[in-house]
Amino acid sequence: MKKPWSGRFKQSTDILMETFSASISFDKRLYACDIEGSIAHCKMLAHCKIISPTDARKILNGLRRILRECDAGRFPFSDKLEDIHMNIESRLCEIIGPAAAGKLHTARSRNDQICLDIRLYLRNEVDETVQAINRLCKTLVGLAKKNIDRVIPGYTHLQRAQPVLLAHHLLAYVEMLLRDEERFCDARKRINVMPLGSAALAGTNFPIDRKYTAKLLQFPEISHNSMDAVADRDFAAEFCSAAALLMMHLSRFCEELVIWNSSEFGFVELSDAFTTGSSIMPQKKNPDAAELIRGKSGRVFGNLVALLTLMKGLPLAYNKDLQEDKEPLFDSADTTQVCLKIFTAMMKSAKFKSLSAAELSSRGFLTATDMADYLVVKGVPFREAHEITGKTVAYCLDNGRTLDDLSLRELRKISRRFQDDVSQHIAIKNSVDRKNVYGGTAKKQVRAQISRLTKKLK
Amino acid sequence: MKKPWSGRFKQSTDILMETFSASISFDKRLYACDIEGSIAHCKMLAHCKIISPTDARKILNGLRRILRECDAGRFPFSDKLEDIHMNIESRLCEIIGPAAAGKLHTARSRNDQICLDIRLYLRNEVDETVQAINRLCKTLVGLAKKNIDRVIPGYTHLQRAQPVLLAHHLLAYVEMLLRDEERFCDARKRINVMPLGSAALAGTNFPIDRKYTAKLLQFPEISHNSMDAVADRDFAAEFCSAAALLMMHLSRFCEELVIWNSSEFGFVELSDAFTTGSSIMPQKKNPDAAELIRGKSGRVFGNLVALLTLMKGLPLAYNKDLQEDKEPLFDSADTTQVCLKIFTAMMKSAKFKSLSAAELSSRGFLTATDMADYLVVKGVPFREAHEITGKTVAYCLDNGRTLDDLSLRELRKISRRFQDDVSQHIAIKNSVDRKNVYGGTAKKQVRAQISRLTKKLK
Amino acid sequence: MKKPWSGRFKQSTDILMETFSASISFDKRLYACDIEGSIAHCKMLAHCKIISPTDARKILNGLRRILRECDAGRFPFSDKLEDIHMNIESRLCEIIGPAAAGKLHTARSRNDQICLDIRLYLRNEVDETVQAINRLCKTLVGLAKKNIDRVIPGYTHLQRAQPVLLAHHLLAYVEMLLRDEERFCDARKRINVMPLGSAALAGTNFPIDRKYTAKLLQFPEISHNSMDAVADRDFAAEFCSAAALLMMHLSRFCEELVIWNSSEFGFVELSDAFTTGSSIMPQKKNPDAAELIRGKSGRVFGNLVALLTLMKGLPLAYNKDLQEDKEPLFDSADTTQVCLKIFTAMMKSAKFKSLSAAELSSRGFLTATDMADYLVVKGVPFREAHEITGKTVAYCLDNGRTLDDLSLRELRKISRRFQDDVSQHIAIKNSVDRKNVYGGTAKKQVRAQISRLTKKLK
Amino acid sequence: MKKPWSGRFKQSTDILMETFSASISFDKRLYACDIEGSIAHCKMLAHCKIISPTDARKILNGLRRILRECDAGRFPFSDKLEDIHMNIESRLCEIIGPAAAGKLHTARSRNDQICLDIRLYLRNEVDETVQAINRLCKTLVGLAKKNIDRVIPGYTHLQRAQPVLLAHHLLAYVEMLLRDEERFCDARKRINVMPLGSAALAGTNFPIDRKYTAKLLQFPEISHNSMDAVADRDFAAEFCSAAALLMMHLSRFCEELVIWNSSEFGFVELSDAFTTGSSIMPQKKNPDAAELIRGKSGRVFGNLVALLTLMKGLPLAYNKDLQEDKEPLFDSADTTQVCLKIFTAMMKSAKFKSLSAAELSSRGFLTATDMADYLVVKGVPFREAHEITGKTVAYCLDNGRTLDDLSLRELRKISRRFQDDVSQHIAIKNSVDRKNVYGGTAKKQVRAQISRLTKKLK
Repeated sequence: MKKPWSGRFKQSTDILMETFSASISFDKRLYACDIEGSIAHCKMLAHCKIISPTDARKILNGLRRILRECDAGRFPFSDKLEDIHMNIESRLCEIIGPAAAGKLHTARSRNDQICLDIRLYLRNEVDETVQAINRLCKTLVGLAKKNIDRVIPGYTHLQRAQPVLLAHHLLAYVEMLLRDEERFCDARKRINVMPLGSAALAGTNFPIDRKYTAKLLQFPEISHNSMDAVADRDFAAEFCSAAALLMMHLSRFCEELVIWNSSEFGFVELSDAFTTGSSIMPQKKNPDAAELIRGKSGRVFGNLVALLTLMKGLPLAYNKDLQEDKEPLFDSADTTQVCLKIFTAMMKSAKFKSLSAAELSSRGFLTATDMADYLVVKGVPFREAHEITGKTVAYCLDNGRTLDDLSLRELRKISRRFQDDVSQHIAIKNSVDRKNVYGGTAKKQVRAQISRLTKKLK
Repeated sequence: MKKPWSGRFKQSTDILMETFSASISFDKRLYACDIEGSIAHCKMLAHCKIISPTDARKILNGLRRILRECDAGRFPFSDKLEDIHMNIESRLCEIIGPAAAGKLHTARSRNDQICLDIRLYLRNEVDETVQAINRLCKTLVGLAKKNIDRVIPGYTHLQRAQPVLLAHHLLAYVEMLLRDEERFCDARKRINVMPLGSAALAGTNFPIDRKYTAKLLQFPEISHNSMDAVADRDFAAEFCSAAALLMMHLSRFCEELVIWNSSEFGFVELSDAFTTGSSIMPQKKNPDAAELIRGKSGRVFGNLVALLTLMKGLPLAYNKDLQEDKEPLFDSADTTQVCLKIFTAMMKSAKFKSLSAAELSSRGFLTATDMADYLVVKGVPFREAHEITGKTVAYCLDNGRTLDDLSLRELRKISRRFQDDVSQHIAIKNSVDRKNVYGGTAKKQVRAQISRLTKKLK
Repeated sequence: MKKPWSGRFKQSTDILMETFSASISFDKRLYACDIEGSIAHCKMLAHCKIISPTDARKILNGLRRILRECDAGRFPFSDKLEDIHMNIESRLCEIIGPAAAGKLHTARSRNDQICLDIRLYLRNEVDETVQAINRLCKTLVGLAKKNIDRVIPGYTHLQRAQPVLLAHHLLAYVEMLLRDEERFCDARKRINVMPLGSAALAGTNFPIDRKYTAKLLQFPEISHNSMDAVADRDFAAEFCSAAALLMMHLSRFCEELVIWNSSEFGFVELSDAFTTGSSIMPQKKNPDAAELIRGKSGRVFGNLVALLTLMKGLPLAYNKDLQEDKEPLFDSADTTQVCLKIFTAMMKSAKFKSLSAAELSSRGFLTATDMADYLVVKGVPFREAHEITGKTVAYCLDNGRTLDDLSLRELRKISRRFQDDVSQHIAIKNSVDRKNVYGGTAKKQVRAQISRLTKKLK
Repeated sequence: MKKPWSGRFKQSTDILMETFSASISFDKRLYACDIEGSIAHCKMLAHCKIISPTDARKILNGLRRILRECDAGRFPFSDKLEDIHMNIESRLCEIIGPAAAGKLHTARSRNDQICLDIRLYLRNEVDETVQAINRLCKTLVGLAKKNIDRVIPGYTHLQRAQPVLLAHHLLAYVEMLLRDEERFCDARKRINVMPLGSAALAGTNFPIDRKYTAKLLQFPEISHNSMDAVADRDFAAEFCSAAALLMMHLSRFCEELVIWNSSEFGFVELSDAFTTGSSIMPQKKNPDAAELIRGKSGRVFGNLVALLTLMKGLPLAYNKDLQEDKEPLFDSADTTQVCLKIFTAMMKSAKFKSLSAAELSSRGFLTATDMADYLVVKGVPFREAHEITGKTVAYCLDNGRTLDDLSLRELRKISRRFQDDVSQHIAIKNSVDRKNVYGGTAKKQVRAQISRLTKKLK
């Protein structure tokens, strides 16, 4: 087929170049958005009397038929036709003839058309992502509710720090995910802007009604500057950035699941459905899903770098480099959503194991801080209380003891401030319940957060 | 000085390690935030009767004295004291004695303290950045107003595309910058959350009032989960991401200035104040400021990658890795602001050159699209009109002609649709004014945008 | 089909998980490497009498048949079979029965098998890349030879600096590309190491002969540590890093072509075969190939970041995250090679335009440095000579003059050191020829480099 | 002071711009390289009779005096003088007067001068880095020797896989580090090239002897193309890439130390000298050094991205953007070296704990693969043997048993192929010693590697 721009060219495109510069292999997934946009554009052209009602009707029928062909997998995408726009327009020509079909592109350029397509696509991807985040949050809140009595060691530096509720730990990730959701929603405001009418870069000569098109496509806003509109890919970079932060959170959670799933930690058992075995080691049950998600943070970070690099130093307005925006964007959207889904299902089927008070006390001196706080209550300045407790820990380490099996006599050798209520004070359960501050790990506080989040996630 | 945590340790820290793990060389710039946070924390402790009014008074006086010492550059920062928190607390000890000073850290850990400090710091940086963006936008709108009559070639693929107003081109960057501003403001919502009371990771045993502290520090919200609060660095990554996008925009603008400033383009002359010469080539006047800003996009992208890499796969809650959050964050904040300032000043002193209609017509066939649109108006379908014009361009190229010096007779040899109103239609000025669509480059539209933006930027 | 590791599992893999964790969609391209490796492994097992000659014969025949099926596109790849290894082994089972087929995996794990496959693949990709680099270098040297007389302005800061030979400019890229080639060859040494026999991570219990396998597969070296061998992905990261540098070079060259191809610079005309038009602007002839290559630097940088992120903080030995190594690696290899090919063809068909001496002298004061050097020869210290010339340039700018149309009298008003040989000294051609230092732009020097490179590239 | 390029300028540099564009705050560390390069350049100029012996003597004396001033910390670096070159030249002027001092810059530009400086600097950094790698390797080989009898669980997917020697695990990192060393040495070849004489971009008009300068500075090679020479920053990017891979390796090792140092794993105890405590939790002993090094991988990856971004799309030859090469480069060099040093010291002072055979057998079924291999020896095809062992593991899990406490009778219920030699076969020590393949974990093999590496590291 003749190129839509061949007028001034004398030589045809190199065959290697044809494949190289074609985007149809990846932008064909935009077909529905492209057709939706063209339908609105056509209606607006008719509404503004730039094309006749008859031509408009023909075009709309043609476009709808093409949509059905695409949906049914019967559309013959072709590399020679460069991109999704030309593929569809060329088919429209076949169906309704060049006279009418040739009018669809009036007052429009591929430069603003592709921006519209990506914005329509991305608006939908944000909604899908937000839903997937929501489902994961609900799952985590459900798990928190179900495991409200389960105490695990809380860690800093992967060293046992203080006892916490498993529920509290799970809800920490809900907070991260809700921030992710907010970021996607904030990005959505900037995605949800209608660029059509910017034409190649300067706006169009035709008396079009951009707000009409926007209304048809449910855009609350239209772009304010035609050169910006065709040169802007912020929406893609911002989406990829939100996706990178989300994957960073998942990579942290996955790291914890991998550690918890080790035989040494043993806090969780992932189900057979989300683990795999080894072709050589018969005993292995590997947390593959968690590892893969952790690893996939790499590609999503890489996609963000790809987009930023791509845009660096590009003059206005459109440059062909921009065609490279799509693959990293699509990959980040796909990866994020599938990881959220897998993660949700993996969590639903995971079994948390019970740790007895003895297991919690046996190592790591989880309640040392409570011992120090006990001394503060008894009137010792915090820094001194900290030091006394540090010495008590050192004494335990030297003698193979734990904090809660020291006798009062032993304790009083270290400091006279210890009295017989100390053992109560450093019991694991009491330690947890004493963190009764907003946002703390006390069961009462965690229950309050569960309520708050349950309402929020409705 | 003894470490605040030396109780259980038998050996002292390796000297090399002391320098390696100390953050004071870079976190000392947080001193004012650290003291502001400590003052609020101390007031809250007194308010909740956790410390006595006398102790509180001593602490507050001590902290204020330290603030004055820091402000005056008289504070003796020491590597041995690891970080800003210990430096200040140790000095407080000297001033008011360990008994009172030791009470300030009650119900607090360095884990939540550092988060508070960074949030206070970053909230302020966002405000500074937003102001700097605003000033640049105003400068650009001012330039647009001043240059409202100046026409330049608009480019796509660095090929002359269509004539546009210089003002329109400048306003395209205002749109980008306003999105940047929005992103910083969106990030601010998530920065503006008070983490204190999360303590090490689990919350505190003391009956503190977190909302009281928040109110003193003007935080509208407090964090909901203590583990998330101490492990979260989203605010840093999100700030760095917003900074990366902003620098990407500036890199594009700088690229254009570098190109426009070349003797071949010659659209602008940058002032002596923002250019430099060569030590060997006496004629050179190099657009150094623009190049440096373009180059600095690299470090700001790199900082974002540094932070994302840092966070990848970290288990909850605090890990020492997080100490590495500060240098990239500080660098992105500093770089962004200085680049905005330099850019603003550079633009203010730049001189745009006038391009005559002849210069605009002489190459690049800027009004070829208008010729095609002319044919559409005459009833030719757009695709056919495009091809006729393409052939006209080819004819000009073969014969060393430009569109506007073809005679009607020559034109009609190519297509009978051309009539004598064509020359009017393809005049540069008319071309611009005909892009009279919202967001288009017609002077009327650009004026409307100038008004809108002038109001918005007040 | 039953998983090869299902012995200890009670539940089957989740369907979503099956697709998520399967790598066959992208690792199927390793089929030839996988089979080549299995053939060598099988021969070695037979050679060491670990399997019988009969079994070996069956296995080899089966593998060869599978190779033919794959080559012919008739192999039924299945997601359920996870990866290329299991797809091939399962088919082998069908063909020769499980008794013999089950023996192929003796003394091997998928962990060392996949490393072997990637190394075989990558060794070949390096060779392809090096060849493609070579072809581009030869093309550039050819162009340099052909254009040996053509002078263009040399730029720094995109400001005209000094006249240079176009040939010299082109050869600068040959130097960069030859360093790229060296880097790929250096990486090849570290790729070209045989890992088989490392098994899952610890080595194998079977008395295998690793050097025999290495010899069959033409590896000069075998890996020294089994844990390193299965956990190492340096070869992938190093390849991606070499690719990133190469693409950075091409992005620079493309930037120049885009600038040179603008109507303002007009140094080159890219052929119709490697440019495209616009769907709306009939006159456009866009340097799409150059822009796309420039843009593709983004994805190749992103792939490197993806790999580095992926590997960060992974404990030994194999982790499922490593499966994510392949897509960025494949993409970098493919992108690099296609860009080299397109670039080579684009350069071959490009036409460089002639710039007259007048055009070279008319702006940018290209020979100002020569004027300063002239004064040095006349005994003026360099710094003073530089300043005198600077003033001369300022005089020209103020009076709309160029260096070579100043009269001697005018010059002597600025400095008495000017004599009548100055005009000769600052003639463009003489300026070029006077840069007669090794590596300089004098024609004699450039010719010498052409000879050196022609020999080197044979 | 007057700028060295102020001749054609009428206005002075903006004060803000002066600081912005000055590089002296970070390039002053190049003073020794800069002076070393100037000394060689001066000697060459004299040797070629371009300057007189008297002038040369004056210059050399002046430069040496400046070197002493810098070494003694008495040199008054000034922002106004932009960079290290101008700071030194200006001081030279003061010392020996402008007549002689002004001649030093003959046949040189800051463009080639800065390249020389960085190459001299970087050549030295490579040597320091290689030494630091070497020391760490020796430390690890020493630890391997000392711990040759210690068995630990080998992991894949952080699941216990097979028993390995701790020594084997440590030597895996020696292999990685030796590859890092190779990469730095390969990079060194491309760093070790003398660029002086390329001048601004085109070469120089003066009859200099570049090889003479190279010889004085011990460069085996001189650059072949002046434009490439001044525009090239490959050496910086390649160094940063090698540093990124090295830090990636260290991040993996640190991750393992953090995990091993947890109370759950308990394989290692890091010394007090390389751990720190908590300001709130008295029992904590945190692996700070390991965490910080792991975290610092982020900045080193970021530096690589910064450099690649910086270079993307820059036209030839020098652009001011290139000034941004130094900070990321310096930071990567510094970070890498300090991390290597800290890591070496941390390893030297770490104590590995003994794990009894019981601890090794009690969980994770470390010898399941050996059981499968046992069955293969007894004639079962590998895939079937794998499945039988899988079922045995499942039986153990259901009944709370370990492989080595199953009776033969129990085993024979699962498969008749088990005989009474099975318990010997699956003993931990035997399992290790049976991995007697080159590169395997058998003590004999590990000893052989220790010997090989000890020789290599001399």
